[in-house]
Amino acid sequence: MTYCVGLRLNRGLVFMSDTRTNAGLDDIATYRKTFTWEVPGERVITVMTAGNLATTQKMIGLLNERIKRPSERELSITHTETMFQVAQLVSSTLREVIAEHEQVGQNAGAFGASAIVGGQIQGMEPRMFLIYAEGNFIETSSDTQFLQIGETKYGRPILVRSYDPDMSFAAAAKLLLVSFDSTMKSNLSVGLPVDLSIYEADSLKVGPQLRLTADHPDYRAVSENWSDALRSAFDGLPAIQGLGVN
Amino acid sequence: MTYCVGLRLNRGLVFMSDTRTNAGLDDIATYRKTFTWEVPGERVITVMTAGNLATTQKMIGLLNERIKRPSERELSITHTETMFQVAQLVSSTLREVIAEHEQVGQNAGAFGASAIVGGQIQGMEPRMFLIYAEGNFIETSSDTQFLQIGETKYGRPILVRSYDPDMSFAAAAKLLLVSFDSTMKSNLSVGLPVDLSIYEADSLKVGPQLRLTADHPDYRAVSENWSDALRSAFDGLPAIQGLGVN
Repeated sequence: MTYCVGLRLNRGLVFMSDTRTNAGLDDIATYRKTFTWEVPGERVITVMTAGNLATTQKMIGLLNERIKRPSERELSITHTETMFQVAQLVSSTLREVIAEHEQVGQNAGAFGASAIVGGQIQGMEPRMFLIYAEGNFIETSSDTQFLQIGETKYGRPILVRSYDPDMSFAAAAKLLLVSFDSTMKSNLSVGLPVDLSIYEADSLKVGPQLRLTADHPDYRAVSENWSDALRSAFDGLPAIQGLGVN
Repeated sequence: MTYCVGLRLNRGLVFMSDTRTNAGLDDIATYRKTFTWEVPGERVITVMTAGNLATTQKMIGLLNERIKRPSERELSITHTETMFQVAQLVSSTLREVIAEHEQVGQNAGAFGASAIVGGQIQGMEPRMFLIYAEGNFIETSSDTQFLQIGETKYGRPILVRSYDPDMSFAAAAKLLLVSFDSTMKSNLSVGLPVDLSIYEADSLKVGPQLRLTADHPDYRAVSENWSDALRSAFDGLPAIQGLGVN
């Protein structure tokens, strides 16, 4: 499994992904799931992936290959004209990889994967998309400004309640750490370290990128304090009155 | 979908279930999912169900039929000698119903259902079981003292963090309301009202049973205050230091 979240803030984009991959509980490895392309002053594009590792590695490989080949460069992730075209390119590449392996007769779901794609191209707004295994995609809207892939449920309630498009990058990073901490406490297949990437709107350069391990002071501060904070919040709720027993 | 939780406390058992059933988003109804049998002074048994409504209604119906028929009464839920035998009876009945309908050629998952069974028989400890669609079951242990069925993920982090076997019934009810509120805010197919049932250990009689609607003061107190409490808890966490941006 995997957990990735992309937040669209008024001041930019924030991405967080875990790094655990597994093919069975006895076959666990650490892989980076966040990939960034930069043409300084012109564009920054970040892709996060969930699903079959062979599928997502090949997808990223094909996106990189296309940048290198002179004949295909015009249609590569570093040359497309809009973020919408970037999303189309990533989704068609993902679909191509899945379709290729589905044809060898395995069950369709086994090679599935999904992705979050976000970034900005000079002269346009930052945009963020969620790409499905079927090759279609959705974009954030003014109503729904964060996207999740992978093991999305455990960490969703805190996002729904505390996300605010005006929040600072530091607050967004804290929110994502809480969401990831809840998920990692519930699903062993989502695991540390987590990768945090920040893109400041209109900067058109790669922003701060941080890998948080179990002993990183920021991760520890959130993880160690959140259980207590949650318990205090819970204790502070009004007591249930209508029971008639203690 | 459905959400049901059973908690085993040192002072007894607490059950909560939602009441929403749906066959598509345009076919929603309210059904009670908690069923209780009582032989005062001798036993109290509570069953909560999730999954296909036709399956669970038939299972409950068969359990009731068996109580009424003189020839089968000795093997009914009100006459078995131990809670383990109650769990066996519920699970074999569930398996029987599912197997019957699987044979007409539909896909196996469509008739699936699961159940939580808890209660106490005179002279023995209160016990609680989770019955799977396959007819096997697990029991709470001293390490894992709560059971969930249905849409379990959204409401799990708060249970993991705040459950305490020593807690009062009122605190347990509050905890369950928070867990249900998080779930209902994330999945439309889990809905109000919720049914709360409390069984006080060694009482051998039905305890307080409460149906909480949207305008019940206890539900409103929890729901209205929890978002604020969570936000305060979140704001109170130490700020992330290692970013270098705001």
